[in-house]
Amino acid sequence: MMHMKQIYLFPTGFLCLVALLFSCEQAPQSTDNKADMQQRPSYAIAIHGGAGTITRASMTPEKEAAYRTALDSALLIGETVLRQGGTALDAVEKTIVYLEDCPLFNAGRGAVFTHEGRNELDASIMSGSNQKAGAVGSVMIVKNPIRLARAVMDQSEHVFLTGRGAEQFATEHNIETVDPKWFYTEQRWKTLQEMLEEEKMKGKTGSLEPATRDYKFGTVGCVAMDQQGHLAAGTSTGGMTNKRWNRLGDSPVIGAGTYASDDACAVSCTGHGEFFIRYAVAHDVWALMSYKGLSLADAADFVVNKKLVEKGGEGGLIAVDKNGNIALPFNSEGMYRGYAKPGERKILIYKE
Amino acid sequence: MMHMKQIYLFPTGFLCLVALLFSCEQAPQSTDNKADMQQRPSYAIAIHGGAGTITRASMTPEKEAAYRTALDSALLIGETVLRQGGTALDAVEKTIVYLEDCPLFNAGRGAVFTHEGRNELDASIMSGSNQKAGAVGSVMIVKNPIRLARAVMDQSEHVFLTGRGAEQFATEHNIETVDPKWFYTEQRWKTLQEMLEEEKMKGKTGSLEPATRDYKFGTVGCVAMDQQGHLAAGTSTGGMTNKRWNRLGDSPVIGAGTYASDDACAVSCTGHGEFFIRYAVAHDVWALMSYKGLSLADAADFVVNKKLVEKGGEGGLIAVDKNGNIALPFNSEGMYRGYAKPGERKILIYKE
Repeated sequence: MMHMKQIYLFPTGFLCLVALLFSCEQAPQSTDNKADMQQRPSYAIAIHGGAGTITRASMTPEKEAAYRTALDSALLIGETVLRQGGTALDAVEKTIVYLEDCPLFNAGRGAVFTHEGRNELDASIMSGSNQKAGAVGSVMIVKNPIRLARAVMDQSEHVFLTGRGAEQFATEHNIETVDPKWFYTEQRWKTLQEMLEEEKMKGKTGSLEPATRDYKFGTVGCVAMDQQGHLAAGTSTGGMTNKRWNRLGDSPVIGAGTYASDDACAVSCTGHGEFFIRYAVAHDVWALMSYKGLSLADAADFVVNKKLVEKGGEGGLIAVDKNGNIALPFNSEGMYRGYAKPGERKILIYKE
Repeated sequence: MMHMKQIYLFPTGFLCLVALLFSCEQAPQSTDNKADMQQRPSYAIAIHGGAGTITRASMTPEKEAAYRTALDSALLIGETVLRQGGTALDAVEKTIVYLEDCPLFNAGRGAVFTHEGRNELDASIMSGSNQKAGAVGSVMIVKNPIRLARAVMDQSEHVFLTGRGAEQFATEHNIETVDPKWFYTEQRWKTLQEMLEEEKMKGKTGSLEPATRDYKFGTVGCVAMDQQGHLAAGTSTGGMTNKRWNRLGDSPVIGAGTYASDDACAVSCTGHGEFFIRYAVAHDVWALMSYKGLSLADAADFVVNKKLVEKGGEGGLIAVDKNGNIALPFNSEGMYRGYAKPGERKILIYKE
């Protein structure tokens, strides 16, 4: 079982001032404590930008600053929605739209390439108040897959649409589509070429094994609690570099990558999707709270740092409970993440 | 909350003799009792062929006999595998292959038609011993989608493949493909035409509402416990008549339509898929047993007859636990189903 300190202070830009004002140097492992449960904050939000081999050694100061700035801007979008009395669903959707448009993250623009050199995007969103959900898999022309997932939830009687059918739904419901070239980034293309080259040398095709220079489990996600106490969760991804056969990971699978229910928590995952599907990770956190009475921190820690570690499933998750507690556990070397409540705000990358 | 007696005796053909030998007239609501838990049977298997508006009034003697014979033959295939010491996984796969090939059921040959007049097939399978899983969505040329799901589980590092990619995987891995015409049946085509006609009159497209003459929630599934005590579950479907946009239901979603873990139970669902996804039904039964200590009968009954009924989610499920207990709850008017253990065997259709 792995243990890690999750909260560390790296002020940058606007974040710098806010973080310095409200944070303590000896940050707790989680914000899930008695004080929080007694005084529910008026809102709470957390974001992630993927987990994986993210170490200080592999990071340049410029790259780190760019990630921190992007996470900070994304978080601010969701915070603003919530502070102004908007819904958790809107906060989640708008925050993820920003992360999808940012080429730093493996979702929307900046998505990784499939074996065939395409960008196939997956996303899902869930509303905790009525447990309605929307999910899309393998779309190639939808600028913001999270918007399409929201439209599936709000404007259809379905939950899960895929491929060309999902794209047709997008055009019929005025969801913005783009030329697939929109999703191209040089870095992701280079990573695919390197993997294909390596495969050729090894005489094996379709490998998704550790060779990845880029970090492996790119995904973006957001969870939020609004001023009405409603929860929501959303996740969006380009999947894994060199994926084949219209492979779906956990991101578009309700119960695996995304889950939300006002009675307990909202969860968004990032990691080796196959493991997260097999152990229904997001729903498992919900079930441990609902049926076993665990706190959010204990439930999330058990799933990520015990169950998944024992099974070999690398990754992490972000979660918020109905009392505004937040948990951000991960069992990989790093996870791009951040969270905010009134009077508390952090952007984090590494283990400590 | 709806309550229903699940077990009723309708002997037919071979089943007749076996059932009369071993059954009692006052059958219990479930086989989950202390005697069973103390004496684990050497194997156990259950099957379903869909749930919905299945009433005696809507059934002709010929139609009923045909369904009973088909269910009986399917069950016998799985029983034979288990009796001969085969694995739960093989029993589940072979039983479902038979149900897919039988035009009476909405899976494989006999699948319902999409809005565009196609047959799009979904399936999933899960192994309880290692929690490996395979799932495929929206395939149109694969004769037995459950075989493809098994191949995804056994021969790839993935869990979930969809659409043309999944079909490509099938051809690369020697899974039998057929001309899409293979899946055509006159009755299903007629049902689609009636629904399209009705839509035209109402001026609405893509409706999946109750109009369906055919019963609504066609799916086939199988759960089994083998002589080694390993569990497995599998599910296969053509989805809902008149579905659009490459809609997926719960059948290919691990955690929703299918789940298996040797530590508790194996589950296969049938019903209004959107609800089964939103409440992660198959994983929920597992979680109620694992985290709340409920028996299989109580866990399955709670999810199907309380939670889903309150939410408006129609359907049912079949499940087997690690002690060989079987539960077959449903909240619709009928569910094609059957189960067998050494010395106990039943084929059932109606509520009572």
